[in-house]
Amino acid sequence: MPRPELLETFENPHPKRDYEIYMETTEFTSLCPVGGIETDAAELELLRGGAPDFGTVRIRYVPGAVCVELKSLKLYLWSFRNDGIFYERAVNRILDDLVERVQPKWMEVVGDFNVRGGIKSVITAAHGKR
Amino acid sequence: MPRPELLETFENPHPKRDYEIYMETTEFTSLCPVGGIETDAAELELLRGGAPDFGTVRIRYVPGAVCVELKSLKLYLWSFRNDGIFYERAVNRILDDLVERVQPKWMEVVGDFNVRGGIKSVITAAHGKR
Amino acid sequence: MPRPELLETFENPHPKRDYEIYMETTEFTSLCPVGGIETDAAELELLRGGAPDFGTVRIRYVPGAVCVELKSLKLYLWSFRNDGIFYERAVNRILDDLVERVQPKWMEVVGDFNVRGGIKSVITAAHGKR
Amino acid sequence: MPRPELLETFENPHPKRDYEIYMETTEFTSLCPVGGIETDAAELELLRGGAPDFGTVRIRYVPGAVCVELKSLKLYLWSFRNDGIFYERAVNRILDDLVERVQPKWMEVVGDFNVRGGIKSVITAAHGKR
Amino acid sequence: MPRPELLETFENPHPKRDYEIYMETTEFTSLCPVGGIETDAAELELLRGGAPDFGTVRIRYVPGAVCVELKSLKLYLWSFRNDGIFYERAVNRILDDLVERVQPKWMEVVGDFNVRGGIKSVITAAHGKR
Amino acid sequence: MPRPELLETFENPHPKRDYEIYMETTEFTSLCPVGGIETDAAELELLRGGAPDFGTVRIRYVPGAVCVELKSLKLYLWSFRNDGIFYERAVNRILDDLVERVQPKWMEVVGDFNVRGGIKSVITAAHGKR
Amino acid sequence: MPRPELLETFENPHPKRDYEIYMETTEFTSLCPVGGIETDAAELELLRGGAPDFGTVRIRYVPGAVCVELKSLKLYLWSFRNDGIFYERAVNRILDDLVERVQPKWMEVVGDFNVRGGIKSVITAAHGKR
Amino acid sequence: MPRPELLETFENPHPKRDYEIYMETTEFTSLCPVGGIETDAAELELLRGGAPDFGTVRIRYVPGAVCVELKSLKLYLWSFRNDGIFYERAVNRILDDLVERVQPKWMEVVGDFNVRGGIKSVITAAHGKR
Amino acid sequence: MPRPELLETFENPHPKRDYEIYMETTEFTSLCPVGGIETDAAELELLRGGAPDFGTVRIRYVPGAVCVELKSLKLYLWSFRNDGIFYERAVNRILDDLVERVQPKWMEVVGDFNVRGGIKSVITAAHGKR
Amino acid sequence: MPRPELLETFENPHPKRDYEIYMETTEFTSLCPVGGIETDAAELELLRGGAPDFGTVRIRYVPGAVCVELKSLKLYLWSFRNDGIFYERAVNRILDDLVERVQPKWMEVVGDFNVRGGIKSVITAAHGKR
Repeated sequence: MPRPELLETFENPHPKRDYEIYMETTEFTSLCPVGGIETDAAELELLRGGAPDFGTVRIRYVPGAVCVELKSLKLYLWSFRNDGIFYERAVNRILDDLVERVQPKWMEVVGDFNVRGGIKSVITAAHGKR
Repeated sequence: MPRPELLETFENPHPKRDYEIYMETTEFTSLCPVGGIETDAAELELLRGGAPDFGTVRIRYVPGAVCVELKSLKLYLWSFRNDGIFYERAVNRILDDLVERVQPKWMEVVGDFNVRGGIKSVITAAHGKR
Repeated sequence: MPRPELLETFENPHPKRDYEIYMETTEFTSLCPVGGIETDAAELELLRGGAPDFGTVRIRYVPGAVCVELKSLKLYLWSFRNDGIFYERAVNRILDDLVERVQPKWMEVVGDFNVRGGIKSVITAAHGKR
Repeated sequence: MPRPELLETFENPHPKRDYEIYMETTEFTSLCPVGGIETDAAELELLRGGAPDFGTVRIRYVPGAVCVELKSLKLYLWSFRNDGIFYERAVNRILDDLVERVQPKWMEVVGDFNVRGGIKSVITAAHGKR
Repeated sequence: MPRPELLETFENPHPKRDYEIYMETTEFTSLCPVGGIETDAAELELLRGGAPDFGTVRIRYVPGAVCVELKSLKLYLWSFRNDGIFYERAVNRILDDLVERVQPKWMEVVGDFNVRGGIKSVITAAHGKR
Repeated sequence: MPRPELLETFENPHPKRDYEIYMETTEFTSLCPVGGIETDAAELELLRGGAPDFGTVRIRYVPGAVCVELKSLKLYLWSFRNDGIFYERAVNRILDDLVERVQPKWMEVVGDFNVRGGIKSVITAAHGKR
Repeated sequence: MPRPELLETFENPHPKRDYEIYMETTEFTSLCPVGGIETDAAELELLRGGAPDFGTVRIRYVPGAVCVELKSLKLYLWSFRNDGIFYERAVNRILDDLVERVQPKWMEVVGDFNVRGGIKSVITAAHGKR
Repeated sequence: MPRPELLETFENPHPKRDYEIYMETTEFTSLCPVGGIETDAAELELLRGGAPDFGTVRIRYVPGAVCVELKSLKLYLWSFRNDGIFYERAVNRILDDLVERVQPKWMEVVGDFNVRGGIKSVITAAHGKR
Repeated sequence: MPRPELLETFENPHPKRDYEIYMETTEFTSLCPVGGIETDAAELELLRGGAPDFGTVRIRYVPGAVCVELKSLKLYLWSFRNDGIFYERAVNRILDDLVERVQPKWMEVVGDFNVRGGIKSVITAAHGKR
Repeated sequence: MPRPELLETFENPHPKRDYEIYMETTEFTSLCPVGGIETDAAELELLRGGAPDFGTVRIRYVPGAVCVELKSLKLYLWSFRNDGIFYERAVNRILDDLVERVQPKWMEVVGDFNVRGGIKSVITAAHGKR
């Protein structure tokens, strides 16, 4: 289960200026829920309920009172490793969890997932106006 | 014949937020109708009426109530494999079929086709305002 | 001599929708008129009046009632092969010929020419408002 | 069914010199036989027995008395489009068919296939000593 | 635990010819054992004993009597996902498991791992003479 | 400690025209303060209080009465080498120091830092309206 | 000394249409004036007063009544080869010289200079509104 | 007709040392003889007997007593522009003409031709032992 | 001062097989000793005796009884950060230190340093026969 | 005139080991002697006898008792800036000058020159056996 309680923050060192923070990991992985595009029952059993998905997650935001602490973000993203979640839900979930903890002035989350069944998927969701 | 009845959808997991879904396959193939730029009669006979075209299809949309199911999209795109269709018609057809099934708030389809006769072609069509 | 009479068209399969067609060839060649940047008299004699120029031609348009037929475009562009024409004139000429035949809602022609005398040139001309 | 009878040859214009000919197409496609890595029964029915595979085929040889005619090679490679064949068999089959028709002094065939199930495959087979 | 019993084989379709098979996945992931370069105790607890490692695995071999079945290879590589193993051991283990099952004439395994602590690692091990 | 007193300026040679100056170094390095994402106590002791961070710094501005002297900028950026500073603070600090010395009409500073813990960070801050 | 009198023009072949001309050379070189970032007295003596600078110059404009003649532009840019000039001054000087000779509707000059002292510089200046 | 009489040479400035000279043009063009892969009768008439082929020619040699003069090589390669010649013949012809004029210790000619009918061709021929 | 005592090793997990380990960091930095190519006295004072050098270090070896522990290698390479050392000496020093600690069957160290004074340097040293 | 007397050396810090030093500059420039491929009399007058040539020079050697001092190499290469010299002669001259001063165990010099008249040239000369 994604664990938003792992997310920590630190005080924005320059709260008077609207500036942008971008963080990217090419090492996001989760499991595809039952019924995914490239798995059958035998495979699902191996990984307790899903075939692995891989992708890049890009987060871009304008901080308000606090910034996301980098190491805690890493741990939070690791917590998707062994649970099944669809692409669309994963990206919206990461955005919701971060918005709740960080209260940014604006935030965008992109999930850029590897090819499955010959098709590549990218999901982009934003909170607030830039 | 393209088979839009293969397209399936699932409920949008975050209908209150306008977010974007992008899907891309580099493995689109169809046949060029009789009289295409690089075929003659002997060749057409081989493939029952057309030389093969290859290209990348890019689909970008903001979902309404439902999202396109990825595996069904794969099957729908496979259904162009053995029929003759011009580039302009193929791209508009894919857009029309997807709009009818998915009722997106906005959708764009791009067909980026391989060089034929030394000329590369890209067709871009959209439905709705972004 | 450029031969615009070679250009043929076919009926736009989706005239109600404004969509974009892009065509690109990396194989455009013409001759540089007498006095060009890298030729002298002995060279000009060889090719009846000009050194060869090479470049990429990019055409982008929103079709009206008709679309350009791809094979006829190829032949039209071949017809520049053995005549001398300056870059600026070639690009404007291609745009004028295509606009007259195709009557697009909007059209842009780019000529992206190889380095001559250590200088690369790109000419961009458009017809109509996008 | 692959149709080697489509392959035609022409006389080697320089038989006294050992030189190399390389031909590459990025547009090879065949079907994966039943039981392939990413298909299930419903999908197989759509394409009469297999999911599409895509790849690049590279052929390199030193001609003997004859060379492969390019257009006939194109038609021969098209003849794999609608039959199911495993990667290993396809590459060895292309090599066998070409060797029989062309009798080269040396020949190598590479099949470089797109990712399936997250795994890319490349098969390389050669005939004779270089 | 890596599960070599998942590996399946099929009969080499061309056993008389020595040819090469190359398979590559960019989606290999395992866990770094306790004491890894970038983890502390709190992180290890999250993933039951290790921080995630990511990398590309490349396998190249000349088959003997049998070839590796692609889907079973995928499942075998998945089985490293949730166990801690050092880079050097992982690559040698994959090579040993494959050699035992496939009995190739020659085989090479490369593990090309992502940057950790600012350092990228690549391990290359081979069995037999080429 | 960053030493803004090292920054020198010269008179803008074309003060009547609003033009843009861009300067980029791929050789920025500082230390991560105690508690950084990839260090432990033993490592910190080695470098007197922090693990090294590396990145690219990009500065873009429209000069007012004066321009930044290039060599003095180099020395100023070197002065971050052996002190611990967080990414967000470093970028805002560089912007503040430069704005105070150079009084530009507009200025943007980007800090594009190398991957740490699998996450890449880019901070972008601007002063004034463009 | 830059020699603007070398610049020649020819009549715009399509004065009724606003179109864009782009010219780029990767072979611009001048000398850095005394006191440059990487030279000392001994070096300056060698080249009569400055260390060599190298860069790319990009010119983009919408012609009015005349266009710049390409060969004369080449000679004009060569005339910077052996004189010392700062980056900011060089770019503004090229723009001023070209504007005076060519009277364009709009013009932009970019000087993209090689790394000196670990810092890359790009200067962008424009004349008129686009 | 290729005109080898255009080739001129100059004395090797360092005949005692075996060194290598490499020359490459990306601007080689000739015509495909009647019956080429992508032309029909109407097209052939336009260019007096052939559709245009484009490619890169690479020449590498160890000079003997003389070197090829660069400008004369350019003119010689231009002389293929308006005659029909097959790829294999063109490359062997260039090699033969150069060997006869230049008498190199070793020479290799590569013709790397653009995609025709979806197939790219590269011909490599050499004279002498390296 | 480089501190070889920081280097730690672990037992080779597969001592019977000769395999290769490659490690690369793009984050090597040291100081150029007094008199370097781009510094003067004022700059040297700032960094206690040298201008910063940056580069990539590549290490490739066949392990004997032990392997280099990755984290200790990182700390060892950090220990060059604040001392002046010439390129040639640095690379040979790293090789000597590693050979003494690790006793590899073969080892190669490459130092690929950033441009200084317009010149890039790469030093390659090896120990033993491969 | 090239000034080999500018070349300085320093003692090889590791004379017992055969290791390789590579140095590369992308900023080599000289003048083409009268009669060059792209100049006429008017141009030559401007630069006192030649049009500018640009290229990359690559030097690779195994040092004997001494190494080339980097800054002196930079000055030596600058000394070609304003004299006319053919490519073949320039590369052999640089090799001769360096061999005489540095007495390497082996040395290779490559001159990789920019396109002139649509043709790129690369000259490679070596001294000694590797």
